[in-house]
Amino acid sequence: MRIDSLFPLIGQLRGADRALIGRDVSAGLTTAVMLVPQAMAYALLAGLEPVVGLYAATVPVIVYALLGTSRELAVGPVAMVSLLTATAVAPLAGDDPVAYAALAALLALLAGGLQIAMGLLRLGALVKLLSRPVLAGFTSAAALIIGLSQLKHILGVSIPRSHHVHTIVLEAAQRIGEANATAVVLGLGTLAVLAALKRVAPRVPRFLLVVAGGTLATWGLSLDIAIVGAVPAGLPAPSLPALDTDTILALLPAALTIALVGFMESIVVARSYARRSGNAVDADRELLALGGAAVAAGLFGGYPVTGGFSRTAVNAQAGARTGLAGLITGVVVVVTLLVLTPLFHFLPKTVLAAIILSAVLGLIELHEAKHLWKTCRSDLALMAVTFAATLLIGIEPGILVGVGASVAWFIWKNATPHVAVLGRLPGTTVYRNIERYPDAAQHRGIVALRIDAPLFFANSLFLGQTVERLIDEAPQPVRHVVLDAKGIGSIDSSAVASLGELEASLHARDITLWMAGVRGPVRDMMAGTGLLDRMQGRLVERAHQAIDRIESNRVSMLSTSTVGASACAS
Amino acid sequence: MRIDSLFPLIGQLRGADRALIGRDVSAGLTTAVMLVPQAMAYALLAGLEPVVGLYAATVPVIVYALLGTSRELAVGPVAMVSLLTATAVAPLAGDDPVAYAALAALLALLAGGLQIAMGLLRLGALVKLLSRPVLAGFTSAAALIIGLSQLKHILGVSIPRSHHVHTIVLEAAQRIGEANATAVVLGLGTLAVLAALKRVAPRVPRFLLVVAGGTLATWGLSLDIAIVGAVPAGLPAPSLPALDTDTILALLPAALTIALVGFMESIVVARSYARRSGNAVDADRELLALGGAAVAAGLFGGYPVTGGFSRTAVNAQAGARTGLAGLITGVVVVVTLLVLTPLFHFLPKTVLAAIILSAVLGLIELHEAKHLWKTCRSDLALMAVTFAATLLIGIEPGILVGVGASVAWFIWKNATPHVAVLGRLPGTTVYRNIERYPDAAQHRGIVALRIDAPLFFANSLFLGQTVERLIDEAPQPVRHVVLDAKGIGSIDSSAVASLGELEASLHARDITLWMAGVRGPVRDMMAGTGLLDRMQGRLVERAHQAIDRIESNRVSMLSTSTVGASACAS
Repeated sequence: MRIDSLFPLIGQLRGADRALIGRDVSAGLTTAVMLVPQAMAYALLAGLEPVVGLYAATVPVIVYALLGTSRELAVGPVAMVSLLTATAVAPLAGDDPVAYAALAALLALLAGGLQIAMGLLRLGALVKLLSRPVLAGFTSAAALIIGLSQLKHILGVSIPRSHHVHTIVLEAAQRIGEANATAVVLGLGTLAVLAALKRVAPRVPRFLLVVAGGTLATWGLSLDIAIVGAVPAGLPAPSLPALDTDTILALLPAALTIALVGFMESIVVARSYARRSGNAVDADRELLALGGAAVAAGLFGGYPVTGGFSRTAVNAQAGARTGLAGLITGVVVVVTLLVLTPLFHFLPKTVLAAIILSAVLGLIELHEAKHLWKTCRSDLALMAVTFAATLLIGIEPGILVGVGASVAWFIWKNATPHVAVLGRLPGTTVYRNIERYPDAAQHRGIVALRIDAPLFFANSLFLGQTVERLIDEAPQPVRHVVLDAKGIGSIDSSAVASLGELEASLHARDITLWMAGVRGPVRDMMAGTGLLDRMQGRLVERAHQAIDRIESNRVSMLSTSTVGASACAS
Repeated sequence: MRIDSLFPLIGQLRGADRALIGRDVSAGLTTAVMLVPQAMAYALLAGLEPVVGLYAATVPVIVYALLGTSRELAVGPVAMVSLLTATAVAPLAGDDPVAYAALAALLALLAGGLQIAMGLLRLGALVKLLSRPVLAGFTSAAALIIGLSQLKHILGVSIPRSHHVHTIVLEAAQRIGEANATAVVLGLGTLAVLAALKRVAPRVPRFLLVVAGGTLATWGLSLDIAIVGAVPAGLPAPSLPALDTDTILALLPAALTIALVGFMESIVVARSYARRSGNAVDADRELLALGGAAVAAGLFGGYPVTGGFSRTAVNAQAGARTGLAGLITGVVVVVTLLVLTPLFHFLPKTVLAAIILSAVLGLIELHEAKHLWKTCRSDLALMAVTFAATLLIGIEPGILVGVGASVAWFIWKNATPHVAVLGRLPGTTVYRNIERYPDAAQHRGIVALRIDAPLFFANSLFLGQTVERLIDEAPQPVRHVVLDAKGIGSIDSSAVASLGELEASLHARDITLWMAGVRGPVRDMMAGTGLLDRMQGRLVERAHQAIDRIESNRVSMLSTSTVGASACAS
């Protein structure tokens, strides 16, 4: 039982039949065929030797297969985390490739450790702060930066590493005269082949195909072009990266970003497939599994890994129904490292760059921007702010700016919430927003309104100001204010105090405040301040009940009915 | 017309009769009698010569009287802003009293300039971020720091300036042996007299009385005690403080805090009196008026000023009904500076310290803490966090920690909102929370629930998770989910996407999602994603309509009624 809960794979395989296992093995092989070239390409993007990407695609993939709660998620090197790795490691490593690899491994260890810690502390909820528009803006900007960073491989020139878009573009423009014609032809050709295959034959392993074709062409035609070169065979022995306090502190912010962004990328895709297959994904368990995979990457000479969009789609499409598929994928990469590395010698870096480009261009979410333009411009603004901040300030501050802006916007929106002035639909007891229902009739001397938002410190004065404005604007002197409180889900101490002051201020001017449909949590807070007692008899279930009572009192001022405690508690 | 709108005082005085003017003059005199000793005391608290407090109580008070929209607000030196001034200026001034005064004047100029800028940019709304518990925690901590900072004057010993509570307490404890017995007796005696007068004869000008008594005793009995000493007569000529960029940058954070906190203190008290007298206070106009007063303080050798709680109470109680009262107050202080300064020579600093102590002890909001303990412990926690941060980290970071914590708590609370599982009250069509109404009956195979919160990025997955949990926990297989959406006031693009995914996921499992009472803004967002179209026929006005339809379909599966577009738009 304990073993089962530690390794979800065991539970997933219980009662599995041959057909299921066959499908999983087939899916694992298919994903591996995609993973091998992608892992090498993304390692290049991270500023590492391609073989480091293969290392990151072995034990980490197997660890996730054993520990993960998602059945479809394909773990390994991904574009975004590779870019974050380059951003973090390049300034510290200088020109020393050995130091670079050691720092990348340490970064994986740190990011994985943070994810495990967050999982143990049940902080999976932190990811809630990343809204869709922020994620879309961030991903689009990162994809643009990644794409531009590959220009040098397509042009076959050397451009100093930079994450400032204008620097990259300027440098590339200056060096366009030095471009290697072979590289340009091969790069654009590869891109064209990839695009065509994706459209015409999406089930063909196109990445493997262009890798094989590019390698054969470079070897057969002796092309003058940057190649991967000698790839050491075998898996590195596990080793702990050097733990130096200063280095750890310098890498920590990047490790935290990778831990969060990597987790976010994984959980979004894992949840979306789990929902389709009717399975559950546990955020805190996922943090442990992904953290375990990243730690394994750090110990086996790899670099930070996480679950990726595109390979997960291939994995699920190819029939993965348990973590067995992931296990097979990891084993295939190990075998590749043991016996197939000589084949990669003549693999041109241009082909790997084309693979990256074709993968990230789809991440620029123009479609989401268009959709938001039509449905929700404020969220489009959040997307644009995050996109711009990521491009102009940097990868990590960009996402912080996005989160800060979305929190600020949420507070601001709720600080000035939607207010509906209510009128009665003719011949009914139904009250509706007079702006949406022009034939809804208002009553003489009565202001009826509805606020649909939690009342809290930032809008605690808003309600009073709105009521005063409506009283001022009313054509006749106002004697009664009816507040439909069905849409007020909660109230804090600041707002309940302001509500009490509003009631007292209205009372002092002989204006009666009624409330309709007060929710339980709001009623509890009002009881605490004595406001509930003070408003006895003026708390009703539906707005029309207050207005009916006002109107009948107006006709016969003698009948002074009150609603007892039962009415306000109903 | 333009003059009127620039100087609200003109409008206030239009049509004023002799009685009104008489009451305002009387109120202005009463407030001045309180202001003169308080201004000297608070200047001492700010680390300045007492006369600087008087300077700050002349032209600034008159400027506010002309520009302010509040009729009762009494402007001048206040305890909190004096403490903030000391915190900001002391580290920069060293031991040079001339430099200290110049920095304090510059600080007033900066704070006033910021307030004017905020008023012109209509940023008065920023103050919404300060919730009641945060303000209570901050004020209580500041009052404690202020109170402790006066210990040295009561003990008659010298204690190095510090804003760390434990340092002050330790130093005072170590020096208690050196205490000046005369100072202790006079200090405690003054405190006792002030407390007794406040209780027995609240209308007696008690501050003036102890100042006169203390001065006479010190002069008559030749007491060996620190005195105010020679006070220069007359008003300083207006002069611009030296504007040095480095100094301005060093003072800017403190100036911003003073601008915000000072504005907050003023607007809260101004609004509370305006509400009672039925007048309006305009936040952005108040920023301009208070900023003008602070700039005047900077130009006339004063230090930052704002509207204060206690003097405003005295002013209003004494009959102030227009800004004329403030004008009189300012003129009285000018006259005091011109002819009465020799009287302050023998005024003991101990008496001024006792005046500060008696004023700030009332600011420690134990009552609010007790109230929150009974009504809203989460807000008590916010108050405690702000209190502790202000005491332990510092005045300015303390308030930032408080604002950050209240924003984070609001997001967190709305990320996991109140969910009510609904059942039908016997014999009605009313659906209620089954936890609050145990006899509310649930229907076989139907999950009915209500969420009372805006749906947004941080709770976008919460709704789906809650629905899945309720489906899992249901005793019978669930065929229908009815979501009462009356309490969902708004929805953002993240949440509407999640809602669409939830609907699709339920649909794939042959579970039907119904929604009741969808609000206009939510309906608009659902229309944008196509979800509204997809849910045609399953959008009803009230929860019972969905359930009635489900139940009748169950009886006769032949009648496949749909609700047209009119139903979802009703």
